[in-house]
Amino acid sequence: MKRIAVLTSGGDAPGMNAAVRAVVRKAISEGMEVYGINRGYAGMVEGDIHQFDAKSVANVLSRGGTFLQSARYPEFAQLEGQLKGIEQLKKNGIEGVVVVGGDGSYHGAMRLTEHGFPAVGLPGTIDNDIVGTDYTIGFDTAVNTALEALDRLRDTAFSHGRTFVVEVMGRNAGDIALWAGIAGGADQIIVPEEDFDINEVVHKVTEGYATKNKNHHIIVVAEGVMSGEEFAAKMKEAGDTSDLRVTNLGHLLRGGAPTARDRVLASWMGAHAVDLLKEGRGGLAVGIHNEELVESPILGTAEEGALFSLTEDGKIVVNNPHKARLDFAELNRDLAH
Amino acid sequence: MKRIAVLTSGGDAPGMNAAVRAVVRKAISEGMEVYGINRGYAGMVEGDIHQFDAKSVANVLSRGGTFLQSARYPEFAQLEGQLKGIEQLKKNGIEGVVVVGGDGSYHGAMRLTEHGFPAVGLPGTIDNDIVGTDYTIGFDTAVNTALEALDRLRDTAFSHGRTFVVEVMGRNAGDIALWAGIAGGADQIIVPEEDFDINEVVHKVTEGYATKNKNHHIIVVAEGVMSGEEFAAKMKEAGDTSDLRVTNLGHLLRGGAPTARDRVLASWMGAHAVDLLKEGRGGLAVGIHNEELVESPILGTAEEGALFSLTEDGKIVVNNPHKARLDFAELNRDLAH
Amino acid sequence: MKRIAVLTSGGDAPGMNAAVRAVVRKAISEGMEVYGINRGYAGMVEGDIHQFDAKSVANVLSRGGTFLQSARYPEFAQLEGQLKGIEQLKKNGIEGVVVVGGDGSYHGAMRLTEHGFPAVGLPGTIDNDIVGTDYTIGFDTAVNTALEALDRLRDTAFSHGRTFVVEVMGRNAGDIALWAGIAGGADQIIVPEEDFDINEVVHKVTEGYATKNKNHHIIVVAEGVMSGEEFAAKMKEAGDTSDLRVTNLGHLLRGGAPTARDRVLASWMGAHAVDLLKEGRGGLAVGIHNEELVESPILGTAEEGALFSLTEDGKIVVNNPHKARLDFAELNRDLAH
Amino acid sequence: MKRIAVLTSGGDAPGMNAAVRAVVRKAISEGMEVYGINRGYAGMVEGDIHQFDAKSVANVLSRGGTFLQSARYPEFAQLEGQLKGIEQLKKNGIEGVVVVGGDGSYHGAMRLTEHGFPAVGLPGTIDNDIVGTDYTIGFDTAVNTALEALDRLRDTAFSHGRTFVVEVMGRNAGDIALWAGIAGGADQIIVPEEDFDINEVVHKVTEGYATKNKNHHIIVVAEGVMSGEEFAAKMKEAGDTSDLRVTNLGHLLRGGAPTARDRVLASWMGAHAVDLLKEGRGGLAVGIHNEELVESPILGTAEEGALFSLTEDGKIVVNNPHKARLDFAELNRDLAH
Repeated sequence: MKRIAVLTSGGDAPGMNAAVRAVVRKAISEGMEVYGINRGYAGMVEGDIHQFDAKSVANVLSRGGTFLQSARYPEFAQLEGQLKGIEQLKKNGIEGVVVVGGDGSYHGAMRLTEHGFPAVGLPGTIDNDIVGTDYTIGFDTAVNTALEALDRLRDTAFSHGRTFVVEVMGRNAGDIALWAGIAGGADQIIVPEEDFDINEVVHKVTEGYATKNKNHHIIVVAEGVMSGEEFAAKMKEAGDTSDLRVTNLGHLLRGGAPTARDRVLASWMGAHAVDLLKEGRGGLAVGIHNEELVESPILGTAEEGALFSLTEDGKIVVNNPHKARLDFAELNRDLAH
Repeated sequence: MKRIAVLTSGGDAPGMNAAVRAVVRKAISEGMEVYGINRGYAGMVEGDIHQFDAKSVANVLSRGGTFLQSARYPEFAQLEGQLKGIEQLKKNGIEGVVVVGGDGSYHGAMRLTEHGFPAVGLPGTIDNDIVGTDYTIGFDTAVNTALEALDRLRDTAFSHGRTFVVEVMGRNAGDIALWAGIAGGADQIIVPEEDFDINEVVHKVTEGYATKNKNHHIIVVAEGVMSGEEFAAKMKEAGDTSDLRVTNLGHLLRGGAPTARDRVLASWMGAHAVDLLKEGRGGLAVGIHNEELVESPILGTAEEGALFSLTEDGKIVVNNPHKARLDFAELNRDLAH
Repeated sequence: MKRIAVLTSGGDAPGMNAAVRAVVRKAISEGMEVYGINRGYAGMVEGDIHQFDAKSVANVLSRGGTFLQSARYPEFAQLEGQLKGIEQLKKNGIEGVVVVGGDGSYHGAMRLTEHGFPAVGLPGTIDNDIVGTDYTIGFDTAVNTALEALDRLRDTAFSHGRTFVVEVMGRNAGDIALWAGIAGGADQIIVPEEDFDINEVVHKVTEGYATKNKNHHIIVVAEGVMSGEEFAAKMKEAGDTSDLRVTNLGHLLRGGAPTARDRVLASWMGAHAVDLLKEGRGGLAVGIHNEELVESPILGTAEEGALFSLTEDGKIVVNNPHKARLDFAELNRDLAH
Repeated sequence: MKRIAVLTSGGDAPGMNAAVRAVVRKAISEGMEVYGINRGYAGMVEGDIHQFDAKSVANVLSRGGTFLQSARYPEFAQLEGQLKGIEQLKKNGIEGVVVVGGDGSYHGAMRLTEHGFPAVGLPGTIDNDIVGTDYTIGFDTAVNTALEALDRLRDTAFSHGRTFVVEVMGRNAGDIALWAGIAGGADQIIVPEEDFDINEVVHKVTEGYATKNKNHHIIVVAEGVMSGEEFAAKMKEAGDTSDLRVTNLGHLLRGGAPTARDRVLASWMGAHAVDLLKEGRGGLAVGIHNEELVESPILGTAEEGALFSLTEDGKIVVNNPHKARLDFAELNRDLAH
């Protein structure tokens, strides 16, 4: 393979730039030419494609977000969109593609591969909810950003004897909430993977103040459960009488310079994606499992280790869905009394 | 004066601990004894008062919030509350008090002084809205925290071509919005001290995207104007068609390790308050003006330089109200095109 | 087991406080009493031992260093020292001990266990060089601190077209250098686990400037190789003509608020150590391997999975010495051209 | 004036990019064209000059260092160098220049003005040692970076009961040492503006440990005094017996994202420089004094308020040399006992 391209797709995540840099640098060191595609699949279809040299990525390693930009582009799920994209790839002489993004982006990579353009997916999202990997690019940064916010909020919670409900991102996964909550010493962590009893939540708050063991109380709520505002309203309904405030960390978690871990992971995965393409392999997603890089077929049977299977009537099934570490929920209950 | 006390009052602000530390250390180096009063005037009335030694404040310089805690206590506006507080001061042999807090706290300091307990106020609030000082303790930290958030949000705004409305604290003052907005390269800054035309706001957004000069747009809104959610709703009403998101930095701005500037300012002011008490002077508020410390009578006539005057019917008048720097609003318009 | 104690030993590392907090909180939630021993084995021998309650560790999670302090105490390698320590443990009714520290500290834990006081070791050091664990408590923070420094130095290296030699800690291990170097985009990383040719090093520098591909050059040198000053002198001897500066990050890497990862790891390990003591198990070191906690006998045969064995003449042998990831060295060569 | 240029000169400082951005944006909003000159006066002479548009400076506000780069170029002190530079300015139709840099750079600005190219100087250096301004661009960031390092070192100093000598930059000025030292709670601050007695220094260390008031000791030494290593050696000679370590923060202080204050100051000054050029005024240096911008003639008589005067035999005299705040040295002695 002589010429490859790289794009970022889906929600931005810190470390995406490190992944793109690694793809560019590794490809050049393997004697390949490498192109950047702006704004994900949308840019591919529009031909927003430019050649990179090693200096193109000289200043991106520490930047958050994605300098290639990202865009939603549901049209790429349709054959027509795919064919338009492929036309542009052909026009530019591109033979393989690296896609950095969420698992929605993986399907595009699968289709490109089926059309003869080997494509490899890298897991780029803060939510850590992608199948086939223990960690996603961006997760560690988001957790540390949430932690920094918790440390700040604790200052003011302590100073005023307040209860804070802190909403964190994570889509349907509780990973950010669990990691940031344990690290930040949250008194309670509410995640979508576990039921909660609002009366129990309020009881713990009340009891904490009553025993004078705590003068403040911090509850981390994953957005997959409900919004922080809704949660606080439920607490009030259930009889909470504390001085209760809500903070939604929201989009703050998506930005910022990536942590060392996210940069290393992204660099490692980016280089590995080039190795796979060099061998002509596509339709694969790279992950990290037990401290080593692994790759899985994006589509296929569970026996083949594929991330997704198709049912007879064409529906997508996730073979081995992501699970948050509920032992961490248990751990926090032991530490937060 | 042989024995003084220190308390924090009103909303917490980074640097309050540095101020308390300076009061304690300076008092000890002047041969005085020094006591800490927990939870502001509430703790004074309840007698929640403890002696400090130099080691008591060994680890507080870098901590956000106030380790003495703070509490609202409107009862101290009444004579009855004041007399109870004074009883406790007498019981502990305390002869003078340093109050770190907002200008609400200054009135208590005035009353104590009138009752024979010289009290000095230090301006502790993130909002920078206290009369008699160019800067308050906590303002610089809050601005830098807001700036860090703006830098993060820009990453994701750029990556997705989005418009962000970012709400920042500041009560009725636009200072945090102006400083953080200029430093963060905000495209528009909306402050309570200046009218705005929502159609103009939306026009700038639309024009920015149309000319391709900008692929994203960040608007900082001071809470004194309205909430970020309300502002975004108004923009939509006025015809904004961009991908618009709202982030409320909220209580994040109150916490965190204080910046160098806030620690230096707090240390300097704290030591100065002790100097004033040593001379038996009270009823004063310390400020910084043109890079030097100044002190002003809290209550008196405008001619005396007092911060507040009483009208004939007993109402409080602010003699020289805080003004935000509207030349900074102008500056940002020049730079943000 | 009804009453346990915890101490920190060896060089301080961010996250040690999180580990101590977890031991205290978990022990209390298991109905145990828990004591803190100040200044490591020295404090044990001197009886510097105090009971903790849940609030004792209320503010330590985000603090760097170790609030229990640490001290070198070679006397504990001798039987006499151990017996004195045990006397103090008995006096306080302590039945088991958690030791957070480097592998030197593990030997003390082994001896206590042999004397009937089950002791469990947790790996606390920034160097990541402890056997029996993929990661040590403190490593992730140190890497991120080094990374932040590299990001700063790059600003000035770029601005002036300079070469920087940056010395980082790590004792005989290259882990900090490798992780921080990859994350920081170092042009070259020199670690003790790999030979280097100083002429090659200088050649890369010269070539980088000559091809105009780089206007600056950053070389990370692990302290286990030699000091940054020595390395720079060797470069000059070998003919380097660039504007060369040396920075030694030194003790900066030991301090600072721990990262999320270090806090989670420390919390998890701390709780696990209590679980082991509860079952009466000692002479073990806790580690993380493949994302799960593991425990290994500190002393025993390689077949038993022990970390250390004794030879017939009483020497200590490391059964499965720590290895830095040299594939990361390779990765960096691919990315840094 | 229709076309102006901007360059950075001397040591890099955080906020230089914010100043350049402000010059570019303000000039464009005034209807001027604006050019960037790479690598200071060296680039001017070589004609390394390029036109900017508003987007050229889209991502530089938060970047440390100077994206225009800087270089030493003593040849510009000679007429020949100046004439070459002017030739290049003429070739590009440039009529005025903004120079961001240390006071060495001001002389070049003066010469350009004398040759008919009005040039304005902005004070860009971390050292805060430039005449005509209360604060320089970069100083606040450097102080905060030093402070962060002091906070880290305190963690490890406390954990091990150590003495740290911390060397900070500042050329012949003690400003960074004084501000960072007070903010970081340094036990002693040694600056070039004040004599010190090494026996006194050691006595304070010894006494601190002896009275058990302190278990650690941090001494900040400005580089203008001597190196940290030399200072520590002198302490040992004078009988210090503590566990003494040296850290040189060195070039770390030059990099990093600028603080809010540095960005605001740089933005404000940059816009003001354009206002001056628009009126055809040159030979001036912009400063901030008592919270307002001021401008001073670079060369002239003291009566005119000029920063520098020439003696009859052509020597440069500084009219009103920068002075560090020695009241801060006094303040720290009061707080650090």
